[in-house]
Amino acid sequence: MEIKIKPIGIIHSPYKRTGDIPCQGYKSKLTGEIEVFKQYEKGLKDVNGFSHLIILYLFHKAGPYSMHARPFLDDKLKGIFSIRSPHRPNYIGISVVKLLEVKGNILKVGNIDMLDESPLLDIKPYVPEFDIRKDVKKGWLEGKL
Amino acid sequence: MEIKIKPIGIIHSPYKRTGDIPCQGYKSKLTGEIEVFKQYEKGLKDVNGFSHLIILYLFHKAGPYSMHARPFLDDKLKGIFSIRSPHRPNYIGISVVKLLEVKGNILKVGNIDMLDESPLLDIKPYVPEFDIRKDVKKGWLEGKL
Repeated sequence: MEIKIKPIGIIHSPYKRTGDIPCQGYKSKLTGEIEVFKQYEKGLKDVNGFSHLIILYLFHKAGPYSMHARPFLDDKLKGIFSIRSPHRPNYIGISVVKLLEVKGNILKVGNIDMLDESPLLDIKPYVPEFDIRKDVKKGWLEGKL
Repeated sequence: MEIKIKPIGIIHSPYKRTGDIPCQGYKSKLTGEIEVFKQYEKGLKDVNGFSHLIILYLFHKAGPYSMHARPFLDDKLKGIFSIRSPHRPNYIGISVVKLLEVKGNILKVGNIDMLDESPLLDIKPYVPEFDIRKDVKKGWLEGKL
């Protein structure tokens, strides 16, 4: 089974090279723009009421992946599904960004951690009841953040 | 530009029909199993330390989408990017589930809200520092949850 997906926009980010990106968006103080292609602009109605959005995008510069990889924050190999590395099956990234402004088909956002020109796949509203969990155990990341 | 992706597993859920599913996983008390195909099983190393996982999957039974749609929790049309409807460009869903047990290539999970047989696209560890935001404004959902 093969699934075909299509970019619905493109991400304009100050991070031009993989090595520039902070380990996750919560450490990024920079802003960027999410351009939604014109044919999807109407879908942005009501988005401006939300302070945060979940962005799905393609890790378009990721290299080959393997089942074990070394994460930013440890020097031991970890299972790919226990780390957030871009080098993973299907190469789909998710980031929570702060919505600063909606201007037509352009979203100005903060806490950006995507690479410039990442293809945009989806935008979802960030909703505390859906997206925030309490009493979280963070495995090998415990004590590292 | 067209991107090809491949399921890396399949989700076994007690929800057999779209109409059975609660509005989001945080309302679901049911458990299910996420089956990772054998060739990806090694990628589950270290996953067992995490209490919650982010699951990316395909809304495989979604119908045609439009830029405006009526969400569960309101009777007015909203922009598709301001709601979590499955009928959306690229049909990719994300859910946060509670990890109960890892058994070989099977993850037993709680708070499941996916439809049975949803194709699995990715598993990422849920990490408070990356995934939890404070001072969130939830737009048209304010007062509805």
